[in-house]
Amino acid sequence: MKIITMAHGSGGKLTEELIEGIFYKSFKNDLLLQANDSTLLSFIKGRLVATTDNFVVKPIFFRGGDIGKLSICGTVNDLLMSGARPLYITVGFIIEEGFEINQLEKIVESMAVTALKAKVKIVSGDTKVVERGSCDGVYINTTGIGVLERNIKLGGARAEVGDKIIINGSIGDHGASIFTQRGELEINSSLQSDCTLLNDLIAEILDNSNKVKVLRDPTRGGLATTLNEIAGQSKVSIKLKEEKLLIRDEVRSLCQITGFDPLFLANEGKVVVVVDNSESNRVLEVMRKNDLGREARVIGEVVEDDNNRVYLETSINGTRIVNALVGELLPRIC
Amino acid sequence: MKIITMAHGSGGKLTEELIEGIFYKSFKNDLLLQANDSTLLSFIKGRLVATTDNFVVKPIFFRGGDIGKLSICGTVNDLLMSGARPLYITVGFIIEEGFEINQLEKIVESMAVTALKAKVKIVSGDTKVVERGSCDGVYINTTGIGVLERNIKLGGARAEVGDKIIINGSIGDHGASIFTQRGELEINSSLQSDCTLLNDLIAEILDNSNKVKVLRDPTRGGLATTLNEIAGQSKVSIKLKEEKLLIRDEVRSLCQITGFDPLFLANEGKVVVVVDNSESNRVLEVMRKNDLGREARVIGEVVEDDNNRVYLETSINGTRIVNALVGELLPRIC
Repeated sequence: MKIITMAHGSGGKLTEELIEGIFYKSFKNDLLLQANDSTLLSFIKGRLVATTDNFVVKPIFFRGGDIGKLSICGTVNDLLMSGARPLYITVGFIIEEGFEINQLEKIVESMAVTALKAKVKIVSGDTKVVERGSCDGVYINTTGIGVLERNIKLGGARAEVGDKIIINGSIGDHGASIFTQRGELEINSSLQSDCTLLNDLIAEILDNSNKVKVLRDPTRGGLATTLNEIAGQSKVSIKLKEEKLLIRDEVRSLCQITGFDPLFLANEGKVVVVVDNSESNRVLEVMRKNDLGREARVIGEVVEDDNNRVYLETSINGTRIVNALVGELLPRIC
Repeated sequence: MKIITMAHGSGGKLTEELIEGIFYKSFKNDLLLQANDSTLLSFIKGRLVATTDNFVVKPIFFRGGDIGKLSICGTVNDLLMSGARPLYITVGFIIEEGFEINQLEKIVESMAVTALKAKVKIVSGDTKVVERGSCDGVYINTTGIGVLERNIKLGGARAEVGDKIIINGSIGDHGASIFTQRGELEINSSLQSDCTLLNDLIAEILDNSNKVKVLRDPTRGGLATTLNEIAGQSKVSIKLKEEKLLIRDEVRSLCQITGFDPLFLANEGKVVVVVDNSESNRVLEVMRKNDLGREARVIGEVVEDDNNRVYLETSINGTRIVNALVGELLPRIC
């Protein structure tokens, strides 16, 4: 079994072997192969969009994905949320001494396959190795660069009273799935993470409506935190209807056992769309034609209220306030 | 004493407090304050340049800098090596549970000050917290985006026979300084890291010569590794003159005690310039007028030889082959 040694992070011969034998092999593209301190990319004319994320998910391989797939999906999806076309990704690895090289190869291959699907090029990379016990297997940073070609303005501060809130499916799948694979409880579950790329779904939404106000993916902190951010940035309140939320049976059972609230569980293949009421039906129809939006639904609306809060209208006609996540629910979910 | 808790990485309220109370306070700029999943940057017309680096240096505070300053200098310098104007930096933190918040504030402030000097904006960030023992204090990823406005082509593959090799000063200062601060040997030393920004020096070189072929900063792996990379990429050999190398007394003594070779010790404020012989004197003069180039010198030249090697002509007129670093010299130097 071949493992990562401190020398793989030295910048010398073994680093070169790692780069050429693993990274170049999977990520191979003309830009990356420049092998300079920085990479010269294509000529751009337009507004740039950038985003960065670290991934420390545990376990690193999970049902529905792995840290590599997650790192590309997460960063590509974040670029998409501004309406941009994702172009480039840079990748930074921090690897623990002793990590199995064949595991690294699997992760890198998973990143390469996902990047290809997302039509982004991996253009720059860096690898550091730290001593045994100074990191937990592998951590990955992915930074994304895109270009905004559409004549639109999206952002958390643009929601207005009357707008509808749409989501493309069930909530909490990623968080719940990761939890069942931590071995903290003896749970037999086949629940998959929803980790996926949203490129096509977002393109179809924006191609068909110019009245979308906000796109945001409810990852860490879940739907509740995302909607609270939007309420705060837009200085509006949001009313959700509990009966409209789609929560898979397995997620619901897990929440009953653990006391987790599915509104706070992370999603990795979902998008919250805030759209003008006049076009909400059109957007919903478009979304339902896409595989990733078959279960799309209006879950609430932006309402007049000075408290900048999120309210949940429960199935029994009560209303409760949904706060942003306070404290820690599930560490290392992404 | 306030410390980082797992909840600071949850994506919820405490994450928001960290972002607003520490990151926004120091990094504050109109772009970062958009607070969306990705950041809309300015309109660009030109060729983009990108680079990424993880920083895991130990200790995180050292003479001449800290992990924050190093992370900005390292990434800005890498952008400069392609002739680009650095524009934007993204920052990803991985922080160990229990890390002192006032240490984080110092690091963040150091990054902000350095970014201001480098005229780059910090435009996107991410913070993850991992359990005690799953990281060593703090790791930082910085990814840089720049634009190439000059009509030049630089790169490791462009060195040609007859070109001169110039460096802007002494070698090994960063590596040697970090080593003396690890506490592995009882060494009293005042040796400082050379960690610095090279913006002005590089601009002055490129403003005064269009016959520069390669710019590269000899960081991890040291001067020897950098020159071997250039020799390999350009398919040339390089001859160095030992007597021309500037090695500070303290670095020399440390190397005598430990057996380190200063050619392999990392530098964080140096640049290797490969320039056409006809303009080497002009470039040297320009460099010497800059504070960071006062000790600039020609240390060797590109020679005709099919072995793609680096040779060192020693003071006693012998010649030895200088290989790229093999194995590990000093882990976590950057």
